[in-house]
Amino acid sequence: MFQHVALIGVGLIGSSLSHAMHRANLAARITACARSEATRATVRRLELADEVFEHVGDAVRGADLVILCTPVGTFGGLAAEIAPHLEKGAILTDAGSVKTAVIRDIGPHLPEHVHLVPGHPIAGTEFSGPESGFAELFDGRWTILTPLPDADEAAVEKLKAFWEACGSMVEIMTPEHHDLVLAVTSHVPHLIAYNIVGTVSDLERVTEKEVIKFSASGFRDFTRIAASDPTMWRDIFMNNKEAVLEILGRFTEDLAALQKAIRWGDGDALFDLFTQTRAIRRGIIDAGQETPAPDFGRKIPRGIAGQK
Amino acid sequence: MFQHVALIGVGLIGSSLSHAMHRANLAARITACARSEATRATVRRLELADEVFEHVGDAVRGADLVILCTPVGTFGGLAAEIAPHLEKGAILTDAGSVKTAVIRDIGPHLPEHVHLVPGHPIAGTEFSGPESGFAELFDGRWTILTPLPDADEAAVEKLKAFWEACGSMVEIMTPEHHDLVLAVTSHVPHLIAYNIVGTVSDLERVTEKEVIKFSASGFRDFTRIAASDPTMWRDIFMNNKEAVLEILGRFTEDLAALQKAIRWGDGDALFDLFTQTRAIRRGIIDAGQETPAPDFGRKIPRGIAGQK
Repeated sequence: MFQHVALIGVGLIGSSLSHAMHRANLAARITACARSEATRATVRRLELADEVFEHVGDAVRGADLVILCTPVGTFGGLAAEIAPHLEKGAILTDAGSVKTAVIRDIGPHLPEHVHLVPGHPIAGTEFSGPESGFAELFDGRWTILTPLPDADEAAVEKLKAFWEACGSMVEIMTPEHHDLVLAVTSHVPHLIAYNIVGTVSDLERVTEKEVIKFSASGFRDFTRIAASDPTMWRDIFMNNKEAVLEILGRFTEDLAALQKAIRWGDGDALFDLFTQTRAIRRGIIDAGQETPAPDFGRKIPRGIAGQK
Repeated sequence: MFQHVALIGVGLIGSSLSHAMHRANLAARITACARSEATRATVRRLELADEVFEHVGDAVRGADLVILCTPVGTFGGLAAEIAPHLEKGAILTDAGSVKTAVIRDIGPHLPEHVHLVPGHPIAGTEFSGPESGFAELFDGRWTILTPLPDADEAAVEKLKAFWEACGSMVEIMTPEHHDLVLAVTSHVPHLIAYNIVGTVSDLERVTEKEVIKFSASGFRDFTRIAASDPTMWRDIFMNNKEAVLEILGRFTEDLAALQKAIRWGDGDALFDLFTQTRAIRRGIIDAGQETPAPDFGRKIPRGIAGQK
């Protein structure tokens, strides 16, 4: 599909893209860029790229598809660095979790002869690094593309076909709407998870040992997403401020109402909310974005007849 | 171990206890009580008890161990109803998620010749009903017992041995400390999860369809615990007000600080918190209360070399 794909950054997403491209034979040649020698050695050992470079300019030279897979805070500097080395007609895309800031940071450096089509695969685990990737990461998940109004249609179509060949489904929307949707489905949930794990680790009257021992009762579910990559998430919050603060405002407003219901013993208000939230879960399972297996991955017994 | 165990309520916990008792041969006879004819029919079909009754007095007659497995809001009424029918020397326990309120509600009805030893198995799934139980639910999990200072030592030891035979590890603490620990590890996390799922389903500019589609990015993890039984959870919040409101106060305080860090672009504060929370996750996995498998239960690929 492409002659030469350059992966800038080889973490969970970069390494998974390499595996997915190999699986479907999507690139005649793959180059990669990694700043640390340790990562470059791992890339060579796992054969994630045909050649791996320290300097990003070397990695993109000759590529017809360049994918930025580093934390979004690095994109401005990277764009300035690669701009002189980009091929005429190349497609430049990324896997960043915010999109308006990406366009803001990359746009000014972009040569006219390069097609920018920002993208975001909605897939991940709480693991990072070049060894954490796997070919199936994008299977059955959504990738959002946020081309600007004047984007080259052929480039958008080709990138869409690329993600589909990696196993993903593709949706196209504006960068602004992307950032709001992701603030809702991802950024604020992560912030809440980080926050509660932080609160809990700071208590005097409950020890960390007790928290860990009895975590199966609910807390555990939060720690998984609160174990995600710190640099990546810092950059996300720094670059999607407005949408995150808007949704967070809604969240705290609703939480204050719940707090009041508890204080005043309004059981009906609680019951109504708790009933409503079950339906959302059902929708997610029906849409194939989750499995209904109880207590997933944790000593699952065979043949359970689970019921809602 | 026991001649006759009476299960009051046959939901997830009651039915799992039945399976666990059968597995380890812990009761010569099991009786159960269920208010609805549909549940009683299921109990008979799955052979969860030797006999199942509509009226709780019938179920406890002759039992040397009685376990309340209904939502905690029902305990006061149940205690009044069963008191005249309890055998001399019987142990009365429960599986409720709050403990001071349970002692408050049951205590006044208790005949002198019965041993009350409140308990709480820290195990569960988001499923409910008599078909959702399985024998392995308590394996490797903790059960907390909160006997009063004047409790009969032999009764406490016997109940401890019972839970261990059901696969559980047992910890003993005061009811007050239990309620604080559980507010931290369970009640507030559930409240937060219910709240964010509620907030998200109420937005105008992001459709429910979008939320469901892109839920794999973080939101999904919250919906699992927000799908738990509404009645049970209403009763928990109504009966552990003080500890929940205390921990919730800490949480909102911390969240306000995070909100400010985002508004003012203080990336270092975010990075520090996000790094600290990873360590807690590690502790939970090391303690065997979680598996390190990435993205558990959801199309797990084989042979991933996950890295933190």
